Amino acid sequence: MSKIVIGHKNPDTDSICSALGYAALLSAKGEDAVACRCGEVSKETQYALDYFKVAAPKFIEKVEEGQEVFMVDHNEFPQAVDGIESAALQGIIDHHKMDLHTASPMFIHTEAVGCTATIVSNMHWCQGVEMAKETAGLLLSAIISDTLLFKSPTCTEKDKKTAAKLAEIAGVDLNAYGMEMLKAGAGVGDMTPAEIAKNDSKPFTFGKYKAIVSQISVMDPAEVMALKDLLLVAMSNMCKHEGYDLSLVMVTDIMNESTDLLYVGEPKQLLADAFGKAADGDCMHLPGVVSRKKQIVPQLTEAAAKL
Amino acid sequence: MSKIVIGHKNPDTDSICSALGYAALLSAKGEDAVACRCGEVSKETQYALDYFKVAAPKFIEKVEEGQEVFMVDHNEFPQAVDGIESAALQGIIDHHKMDLHTASPMFIHTEAVGCTATIVSNMHWCQGVEMAKETAGLLLSAIISDTLLFKSPTCTEKDKKTAAKLAEIAGVDLNAYGMEMLKAGAGVGDMTPAEIAKNDSKPFTFGKYKAIVSQISVMDPAEVMALKDLLLVAMSNMCKHEGYDLSLVMVTDIMNESTDLLYVGEPKQLLADAFGKAADGDCMHLPGVVSRKKQIVPQLTEAAAKL
Repeated sequence: MSKIVIGHKNPDTDSICSALGYAALLSAKGEDAVACRCGEVSKETQYALDYFKVAAPKFIEKVEEGQEVFMVDHNEFPQAVDGIESAALQGIIDHHKMDLHTASPMFIHTEAVGCTATIVSNMHWCQGVEMAKETAGLLLSAIISDTLLFKSPTCTEKDKKTAAKLAEIAGVDLNAYGMEMLKAGAGVGDMTPAEIAKNDSKPFTFGKYKAIVSQISVMDPAEVMALKDLLLVAMSNMCKHEGYDLSLVMVTDIMNESTDLLYVGEPKQLLADAFGKAADGDCMHLPGVVSRKKQIVPQLTEAAAKL
Repeated sequence: MSKIVIGHKNPDTDSICSALGYAALLSAKGEDAVACRCGEVSKETQYALDYFKVAAPKFIEKVEEGQEVFMVDHNEFPQAVDGIESAALQGIIDHHKMDLHTASPMFIHTEAVGCTATIVSNMHWCQGVEMAKETAGLLLSAIISDTLLFKSPTCTEKDKKTAAKLAEIAGVDLNAYGMEMLKAGAGVGDMTPAEIAKNDSKPFTFGKYKAIVSQISVMDPAEVMALKDLLLVAMSNMCKHEGYDLSLVMVTDIMNESTDLLYVGEPKQLLADAFGKAADGDCMHLPGVVSRKKQIVPQLTEAAAKL
């Protein structure tokens, strides 16, 4: 049975492309490894896959007991594919905070960089493995996506240098391709409010509260905000049916680098404390905020510890 | 203030030499980093330091608040230098099971290899950093020590290949140097029973029981076993004064690849369950057992879960 390389649920471009990139690296080293996904491919990711003519990883509902699995772009089990608890975890490549307990030593490589694909790319070069043009293109797409074309505060010099090198291998103009890819993923198109409310969503626990934080990055926030009332209903339903105390949706304006944070649920005081603004409505404008990982989650974690 | 690279308390050769090796790598890359230690240098380690004419890392009692620290050869805070909780942790290089929660992403590299020095060595080569002869000698010493010259079940092909390459850079005959180094560290010499009882000791929690597991590797176990009664008293005192439920001392016969496991404290049933032998005395002979990490700790962890 092939080893599986897989990103988190509700996969973003990094989770799909780093899985493909790391599976390619393992294969080049003679291992029988295949990339999988445990969620839908986003419009942005599909643009990248189409551009570089690569098929999406195979969709799987869950992993079997004893299945050998590499986790990329996440390390917390609640974000992982179903069945992960009884799988044979082989390794982790990630760029998030670490919350992990393992029974025995294993391969783990995490770095405080903007994108898992930056780590996967450098592993190729470190190990002297030649990278296919399309792999470079997909890994580049992941970096552009996670760093919002280098605008996110999570972006490091290493991400920028790696992206430049990848663009050369892939034979694309970094900025032109990057803008096109972001645009392709940015519109809400024919998404339903329920789909927007769950877009790129991740569950978190802030103190004793269960929250789900989604993000949709757009060129024009007005397009999403026109659906605000329907979106709030969808968020409220999500809380009710999936047992969350709070549902947050980041409507992130890529061009102006700001976020409208929609919120439903309790405690609203957590939001007021975290971002230093009144939280008596259903939306908070946060200028300069584009990163969930750096500008939303740590602030909520800290506020919850003091609540 | 320099960044500190430091191994675990009661440092073994890997904790000292990987700290020196990784500090050398960081320095070569232009970072201001220095190796430290939070315990005595063992006879074995001193042999390696003398052989390659390198001074021992500076001893520190604790790290200051906000001090930038890299942890090598461990990742659990109870095994780390005092003050680690309020230090600014920069990264971890290790080959043990992972039990870690971090507030933000950071550099972590762990692998299921026999020795941290194997990882540190390959980081040099991966990053194209030239390694000094004495650094190679120390990293080689760590691999020989942790794998008992490749005899331990924790030893991998990667450890062997890395050691061969290091021996070439260091200009030593791997086997001849290895045997000399192990011999130098193997005798109990003028150690007191209390010193033997705490040799290379690490604290663990098995279920609800606090244990301390020490190890002394020898060419001739009879030398230690002659001190058995005094050793058991020292172990009993350690339990009483430091609050452990169990004190275990592995007297490991390097040449015959076996361990006499001395034990004091409760519950003895835990030992009986873990190793499938009667535990109604104070010593258990375990043929083939040389590795605490692979042949003692997981077995106790598993038995405690079922007790």
